[in-house]
Amino acid sequence: MANINEEALLAHKQLRGKLSVVPKDSLDSLEKLNIYYTPGVAAVSSYVASNPSEAREYTWINNAVAIVSDGSAVLGLGNIGPLGALPVMEGKAMLFKRFADIDAIPLVLNTNNPDEIINTVKAIAPGFGGINLEDIKAPECFYVEEKLKKLLDIPVFHDDQHGTAIVVLAGLLNACRVTQRNLKESKIVIIGAGAAGSATAKLLSKYGIRNIVILDSKGAIYQGRENLNDDKEYLAFITNPDKLQGNLEAVVGNSDVIVGVSQPNMINESHIRKMNDDPIIFAMANPIPEIMPDVAKEAGVRVIATGRSDFPNQINNALAFPGIFRGALDNKVSKITDDHKLQAAHTIAELVANPTAEDIIPSILDSRLVPAISAVIV
Amino acid sequence: MANINEEALLAHKQLRGKLSVVPKDSLDSLEKLNIYYTPGVAAVSSYVASNPSEAREYTWINNAVAIVSDGSAVLGLGNIGPLGALPVMEGKAMLFKRFADIDAIPLVLNTNNPDEIINTVKAIAPGFGGINLEDIKAPECFYVEEKLKKLLDIPVFHDDQHGTAIVVLAGLLNACRVTQRNLKESKIVIIGAGAAGSATAKLLSKYGIRNIVILDSKGAIYQGRENLNDDKEYLAFITNPDKLQGNLEAVVGNSDVIVGVSQPNMINESHIRKMNDDPIIFAMANPIPEIMPDVAKEAGVRVIATGRSDFPNQINNALAFPGIFRGALDNKVSKITDDHKLQAAHTIAELVANPTAEDIIPSILDSRLVPAISAVIV
Repeated sequence: MANINEEALLAHKQLRGKLSVVPKDSLDSLEKLNIYYTPGVAAVSSYVASNPSEAREYTWINNAVAIVSDGSAVLGLGNIGPLGALPVMEGKAMLFKRFADIDAIPLVLNTNNPDEIINTVKAIAPGFGGINLEDIKAPECFYVEEKLKKLLDIPVFHDDQHGTAIVVLAGLLNACRVTQRNLKESKIVIIGAGAAGSATAKLLSKYGIRNIVILDSKGAIYQGRENLNDDKEYLAFITNPDKLQGNLEAVVGNSDVIVGVSQPNMINESHIRKMNDDPIIFAMANPIPEIMPDVAKEAGVRVIATGRSDFPNQINNALAFPGIFRGALDNKVSKITDDHKLQAAHTIAELVANPTAEDIIPSILDSRLVPAISAVIV
Repeated sequence: MANINEEALLAHKQLRGKLSVVPKDSLDSLEKLNIYYTPGVAAVSSYVASNPSEAREYTWINNAVAIVSDGSAVLGLGNIGPLGALPVMEGKAMLFKRFADIDAIPLVLNTNNPDEIINTVKAIAPGFGGINLEDIKAPECFYVEEKLKKLLDIPVFHDDQHGTAIVVLAGLLNACRVTQRNLKESKIVIIGAGAAGSATAKLLSKYGIRNIVILDSKGAIYQGRENLNDDKEYLAFITNPDKLQGNLEAVVGNSDVIVGVSQPNMINESHIRKMNDDPIIFAMANPIPEIMPDVAKEAGVRVIATGRSDFPNQINNALAFPGIFRGALDNKVSKITDDHKLQAAHTIAELVANPTAEDIIPSILDSRLVPAISAVIV
């Protein structure tokens, strides 16, 4: 890591910004200026103003996505603010272009107030074909996304929630093939009830899994627990049918899967010993997972996934969001629904023809991903 | 014009957006992804969050400008809204890149409320090195710009105001050389007291011209006229020492210069006959000027400038704003002052070594412009 950190600092300092905004045609003559700027552009502006439904045919809206963050939950770094968030958002914009040929714009906000975030996104929305919310902390992220989905007629997608949920489900589908399980009948323990954990619980529930137990820093979430916020009330309602209480040790017995979206080193061998045979572990805290793969393997885990590219089975949002947005833009989809997410997960899983313990998920460099996913976002 | 309009519509429909957002380095390997995205970017985000004064060295802030419009005064088209504004803002971003290698982002807003515009720009400001306000109508534009200049520590520049003012002054400096006048002693009549006319009056006043008369749709603005808004009160205070009243016909006598930033066909031969010998006309309504150059010439005007590229002496904001922002970004200038504007005007004028009646201003394709102007924005 030290080496990657130094390389990253040096590379960023050399580039001074990872993105460039370039004209799609040259401006090498007054004739071109007359067409793309004044006076010719006036005809285009008049036409678009009079025919707003055709705006996408004459502007970049058809291919432009705003990546919006308030910097309140950046990677594992917490609330480091808009400047700290910017390198991540620039990186994400690189991925948008590299994987889906989408023109993505980082917008980092100097407010953590949910209503101010909503008002800002609403104000800038006319010029974009989609909104990728990123690294906004829970529970504010739920309110911001829900409100914006109602206010706007373009897709609003909080990737920390839904990107993670889609890719986890995709990985679990194949992990269950490898371990010969029925996923819907499995018991899943999710550590972490932030944006990623909450959305994962909801999508797994939509998929049809009943026995999900999700834990926050106070332990398992169950109906009747005191001081639950609205989102956790809802999680308690859709999960934990046995109303299990207590910490991971207390609730992990007879589980089939642990999904960690929390902190380093939360899972140990004694947890694994309480799980059912041939258990599945997704340890996705970054960069240090909830349990290191070698430790999990020694404890008898065959299928272990992490968020890291230097171990097998990398569970990475970049598997999903490029195709999701490519499909939404191309097919003029204004809402990303639960059905879209479920279909995207199946699509990703199916790209691995013969899953094995060390190959449950495609590489993010797999060029089949974006066309396959975008085809189901209709 | 019909031909240009058709060409413009066709070209825009073919491009479907005039801008592309591209990575400055390739992402062809997991190693690159590890450096530019997770996990490596976490080191950069941490560093920038802890050392905000160095954010520009590690992000695109050093070269990124937001072009913000509410679409309330687009070209000569009026309040056509954000979608209508977008083709113009995309075109402007093309010019930013072509002339000054600046990465400019069009942001079109779905609000005309000045405080909402201010709040939106304030919210998105952390990720940009400058704000170009564009096509926001007067008088709201004055309030929006003044407030944002106070709130933000990056340059905020309403180009319709100051770009126009700078280029008009540059042109007048050389027009006076050609007609052998002392500009400071000249009488200038400005038709139009919107963003461009108001800012031009203010900058010409700063330059030292006392005898300016500026007209709005109700005629000359003078101290004591009823129902003047704050901006026009100020204009009345700094201009019109003789308190002239009435329409152009009534106030144009013995003037040396007419600057038109208003509507087509506002100037006729009888106005010109009342002016001093060898008068100067800048007729900048677009695309149809206040008087056509051939008509002005027949009435005895040697020096006539317009906003159009198909006549000599094109007075175009694109002469100024690329160099202004290039200089502000490179020299970390946080406010564009009146001195900057005056120096930029002199710099532009001086690029024409031997002005003639048909050559008072450089071509916007003159590659000396940006380096020369940016050098004085310090």
